[in-house]
Amino acid sequence: MKRRQWLTMTGTASLGLAALLAACASAPVRGTGDLGVVIGRANGTLYIIDTTARTVLGAVPGLGDLSHASVVFSRDGLFAYVFGRDGGLTRVNLLEQRITQRVLQSGNAIGGAISDDGRIVAAQNYTPGGVKLFDAQTLELLADIATEYAPGRRARVVGLTDLPGRRFAYSLFDADAIWVTDASDPSQPHTTKFNDIGRQPYDALVTPDGRHYIAGLFGEDGLAMIDLWAERPEVRRILGGYGKGQEPLPVYKMPHLRGWAVAGRRAYLPAIGRHEVLVVDTESWQEVGRIPVAGQPVFVMARPDGAQVWVNFSVPDYHRVQVIDTQRQAVVQTLTPGKAVLHMEFTPRGDSVWISSRDDHRVSVIDTRSFATLARLDVPSPSGIFFTSRAARMGF
Amino acid sequence: MKRRQWLTMTGTASLGLAALLAACASAPVRGTGDLGVVIGRANGTLYIIDTTARTVLGAVPGLGDLSHASVVFSRDGLFAYVFGRDGGLTRVNLLEQRITQRVLQSGNAIGGAISDDGRIVAAQNYTPGGVKLFDAQTLELLADIATEYAPGRRARVVGLTDLPGRRFAYSLFDADAIWVTDASDPSQPHTTKFNDIGRQPYDALVTPDGRHYIAGLFGEDGLAMIDLWAERPEVRRILGGYGKGQEPLPVYKMPHLRGWAVAGRRAYLPAIGRHEVLVVDTESWQEVGRIPVAGQPVFVMARPDGAQVWVNFSVPDYHRVQVIDTQRQAVVQTLTPGKAVLHMEFTPRGDSVWISSRDDHRVSVIDTRSFATLARLDVPSPSGIFFTSRAARMGF
Repeated sequence: MKRRQWLTMTGTASLGLAALLAACASAPVRGTGDLGVVIGRANGTLYIIDTTARTVLGAVPGLGDLSHASVVFSRDGLFAYVFGRDGGLTRVNLLEQRITQRVLQSGNAIGGAISDDGRIVAAQNYTPGGVKLFDAQTLELLADIATEYAPGRRARVVGLTDLPGRRFAYSLFDADAIWVTDASDPSQPHTTKFNDIGRQPYDALVTPDGRHYIAGLFGEDGLAMIDLWAERPEVRRILGGYGKGQEPLPVYKMPHLRGWAVAGRRAYLPAIGRHEVLVVDTESWQEVGRIPVAGQPVFVMARPDGAQVWVNFSVPDYHRVQVIDTQRQAVVQTLTPGKAVLHMEFTPRGDSVWISSRDDHRVSVIDTRSFATLARLDVPSPSGIFFTSRAARMGF
Repeated sequence: MKRRQWLTMTGTASLGLAALLAACASAPVRGTGDLGVVIGRANGTLYIIDTTARTVLGAVPGLGDLSHASVVFSRDGLFAYVFGRDGGLTRVNLLEQRITQRVLQSGNAIGGAISDDGRIVAAQNYTPGGVKLFDAQTLELLADIATEYAPGRRARVVGLTDLPGRRFAYSLFDADAIWVTDASDPSQPHTTKFNDIGRQPYDALVTPDGRHYIAGLFGEDGLAMIDLWAERPEVRRILGGYGKGQEPLPVYKMPHLRGWAVAGRRAYLPAIGRHEVLVVDTESWQEVGRIPVAGQPVFVMARPDGAQVWVNFSVPDYHRVQVIDTQRQAVVQTLTPGKAVLHMEFTPRGDSVWISSRDDHRVSVIDTRSFATLARLDVPSPSGIFFTSRAARMGF
């Protein structure tokens, strides 16, 4: 054998080894139960984080317009599905830190959901309006549900959430309707329609047990609720005074209903335009109290055990976070984790909370008992924070 | 270069490649969120399962006596901690399908827990009595809490559960006591003791919100409860009639309190020695109803959304499983998935339930809406079934 030949062969072998090592290294043997992602709002980048080590593991760029982006996860916690504002739907392998599929599925969208069995991803769209169903493995389009409410006119869709039994519920802003789609056979989805639910539903949530679907109304006061466990589900109006007496507000100032907290038999929700959190009994659906807070609440989120409710605020109070003790029904702590707090996410057993401060380019990890800051992570313009433990929860 | 030398070198390179490939192959790039384990009771083997593909991925033998074995998981879902009856505590890497550590930490034990932050594993022991705390990564012993209630006498420990803030609650069978240990500093755990809680606590549970710790009493009727959210927690007796008028029963026939289901504001629990499930209001802690069932209930488990409660039974009715609709408060389905049903585990969003039938050597996967059997897996003498999604839940 000639020396050159030998070098070539060993060189190839080395390259092979190196490639294999790189492949192994890029996808280490590790679990996915403690992974999460942070939306890099300004640069279209998904930051992958480790909630045990409290570190940033990597960054995946190329996800388009991520303002108001949201994320759901595959059952195994390996894949994140990122819904961008520009209609982009991107599937990211969290261990390999790479995009596996990306589709521009509409011109303007705002979020999505994944079916309880993890097989179908649904996106809710503004332009054109409707809901699209995708195969969760391939992102192949399975169905396009046109939310046509008049010839040639498709309603914008908001408040999309998963329900048990491969179903999805969502609201039609332009059609004053709530639709529930059964995607058992995703090529032929079956939709139940609730009409005249109230004017202009703008967001919605499902309670943690999947029983009550509640839509906020932009065009009038109060909320529309459906008891999905009823033998014949129907729309009922609750909290008639919700939003009452307020000046009409632009949509971008409306608080997120997803931020509703249900703790024990009480729900906590942001008052509209007032420095208050409303307390509602979830059996009577009557308001039973109000808690004064430091500003106009945006997200009102319960620690998983329901013992605390954490609140962030809109401008000019968006550097603050307050903690309500649900036993005392009062604020017990005020924190200032950084400028422009946009989102909060609890670890699944509630021992810590992760808070994004967009203008300080920082994510803070805070102990929910001592309120000590456990870690600070540098992330450019962080907004939404999402942990893989959401895969195990309904409506997340 | 000589031919022999070349062959040796390329041979080594090939071996290296093969080893690398094997290493990669033995630990594939996959998530851990949809993994689970089934206890092989008769052969000391842990069967690793995939709840998405509904298959057995592998078997890990050598875990000792696994009768009444229970399992907790690391935060990342990569490691299972298996507590054997013989005092064995084994840490298993689920992706590599191998034992990473194993200690015989006592002579006779029955279960354990993992702290909310995933850093400490606790084992409850009969012989000698006490609780041992271990480092979750290394299984190094951090503390041995001797449950000494009289000079030289250590109480047997039951009903161990995790609580928020790196705490554990447990009951002392021989000392009529409940202890709550704060392991913030695991080398110097701090214990709060509740005495005279009632005679011979034999099992206990914590409600899903971590608020109420409830111990069943073997030596008298009724249950002992502590409201852990109270400013000064104290023991209160509830359900004074629980177990009343029954002949003294051997412990092995007592229903598992872990089987309690809390759904909405109602709790469902097995009646002792009667063919009934009791319904209890979780605000008043009064009995509010009884539901007739097909036998003496053992496990009474709520589907995660609380819309259904599933029940299995002791001999001679242990081939049956019944489903209670919590809206109608009545049995709506009776299934016969196989002989000697020992355990049930719901997928985290409740779309299916996995049921072990020991004497048919079968695990059945059942759709909780249609009650169709989705899959049957061959597993020798299966007993407990545990999914990694437990890592995200308190008291599991």
